[in-house]
Amino acid sequence: METKGTLLSYRPDVRVVDATIRDGGLVNDFRFTDEFVKKLYQANIKAGVDYMEFGYKASKDIFPEADFGPWKFCREESIRKIVGDNDSDMKIAVMADVGRTDFRRDIIDKSDSVIDLIRIATYINTIPAAIEMVEYCHEKGYETTIHIMAISSDNDTDIEEALDLIGQSSVDGIYIVDSYGAIYPEQMRKLADKYLFFADKYDKFVGIHAHNNQQLAFANTIEALSKGVSYLDVTVSGMGRGAGNCASELLLGFLKNPKYNILPILDILEHEIVPLKENGMIWGYDVPYLLTGQLNQHPRPAIAATKERRTDYRNFYVDLVDYK
Amino acid sequence: METKGTLLSYRPDVRVVDATIRDGGLVNDFRFTDEFVKKLYQANIKAGVDYMEFGYKASKDIFPEADFGPWKFCREESIRKIVGDNDSDMKIAVMADVGRTDFRRDIIDKSDSVIDLIRIATYINTIPAAIEMVEYCHEKGYETTIHIMAISSDNDTDIEEALDLIGQSSVDGIYIVDSYGAIYPEQMRKLADKYLFFADKYDKFVGIHAHNNQQLAFANTIEALSKGVSYLDVTVSGMGRGAGNCASELLLGFLKNPKYNILPILDILEHEIVPLKENGMIWGYDVPYLLTGQLNQHPRPAIAATKERRTDYRNFYVDLVDYK
Repeated sequence: METKGTLLSYRPDVRVVDATIRDGGLVNDFRFTDEFVKKLYQANIKAGVDYMEFGYKASKDIFPEADFGPWKFCREESIRKIVGDNDSDMKIAVMADVGRTDFRRDIIDKSDSVIDLIRIATYINTIPAAIEMVEYCHEKGYETTIHIMAISSDNDTDIEEALDLIGQSSVDGIYIVDSYGAIYPEQMRKLADKYLFFADKYDKFVGIHAHNNQQLAFANTIEALSKGVSYLDVTVSGMGRGAGNCASELLLGFLKNPKYNILPILDILEHEIVPLKENGMIWGYDVPYLLTGQLNQHPRPAIAATKERRTDYRNFYVDLVDYK
Repeated sequence: METKGTLLSYRPDVRVVDATIRDGGLVNDFRFTDEFVKKLYQANIKAGVDYMEFGYKASKDIFPEADFGPWKFCREESIRKIVGDNDSDMKIAVMADVGRTDFRRDIIDKSDSVIDLIRIATYINTIPAAIEMVEYCHEKGYETTIHIMAISSDNDTDIEEALDLIGQSSVDGIYIVDSYGAIYPEQMRKLADKYLFFADKYDKFVGIHAHNNQQLAFANTIEALSKGVSYLDVTVSGMGRGAGNCASELLLGFLKNPKYNILPILDILEHEIVPLKENGMIWGYDVPYLLTGQLNQHPRPAIAATKERRTDYRNFYVDLVDYK
């Protein structure tokens, strides 16, 4: 198998993207304390993390502000309260969902913003709307990435067509997103080849955002990396929706670039994550997530089952299969 | 990359080996109730599991019987109490450690035993002793496998020499064992190629026994499978020493042979594993195991740290690195 790089060397094109507040925010409706976010920000800088995603730029017309913490909306002033002018080597990212972002109102000129990268999330049937947002953000001066979600239920022809359309846009990078945690490493390598083919053609980079339903988030991330994928999403303790993501501590301990350092993340695990878990915040691999992942389904029923602490796994499984 | 089989078909050479009582026994000193073992036995049969390992054939001269439950010793009558004459398609296995088994006394003629397979565990420096045990057990009429433990700290030349020696014995199969949970999929595929080369030369099969320190037990198992490895060790809920093993429910949901059925295992998770965990039995992925795995070290300090519920991960890590 052809790989880019080896297990002992490192690739200078690699970027580690911490998505803890954004994907973890889906667990607690974005209600992190400023202290938590500030400590994570400082730890990420010390750990050598390249980008930190602070949350969504969600439309306040669609989502009532009272129902969420500040990171659902990522106002400029909310971020600056944490990072000031972000006098560091780490860049700041936010996510903007197609159809759920009032981008013409809420995304200001880059020259007035502390944000560097706008990550645009889309389903495969709204690629033109995603590209419209890319062009808008690019014009404003931001770096941009496109994230096609739930591709494990899309067909190859559609994915290829989407990649070819996206390639012709001003976007900087394209993400492989395994929303359902359904993709196996063997498939991930093929997907990486496919994304990289179009990325190379149009001079873009490729990223990966994995979910851990089948305990494959880390494996899929390093397998995609070995093929040439370079933007790698992680969250501290894998904190994220449902089964969560590739854990920062797994990836930072694996990468060989001496700029990366696991120790600041271990501090966060000890002082911030242990208390969150003790206070009852729940995320990470569990049987219901495994089952939706195996069946290539949205994790919604598994999230509900976990919230209710259901352990009647057989009933849960039979319902899933029946629903299909 | 050349693979054996595809993700949609199945390979008739695959065998699923449940090692819950043996590897899980390392968590509770082999003190499972007969009821637990019987329910697992019945569930494994219904799930299509091909072998069930009941524990160790440990020497009573070395290990005081009072310190352990019955599955440390696997007397013939202990197993028969659960399985009778094992009137099923599932075969019975036990493990015998080189240097810790009084095999000439404790391993009787196969014709008098309900055991089918004797799995001989060795380090790389005791291969001749392992082969002596293989020949003894083979002569007695058993199937045999050899398990070279902790190979992540062995060098390639030694491994190749060991495989060539083992190949010339009467053993039926050779196992890749990732005792430290230190091996990455990219390395696992190369190891699989190496083991399969010698296995093909001498007409043996290859098995895999993975540990989950870096959340790679399932990934490494299916990657090894894709290269041609055919005997796949699992435990229910990944129950096993330290970070545990590849979970039965992950693998059985992945395999495409219609003989395999995840439902009986989901029943065991609900009715047997949930209570064990509620009663305080601890196993599975956690930060200390991740760190020993990353550093390619024995999980012993991580097991101790987990028992003491230590969360001072930085101190723990610094001690590990210092110890090296």
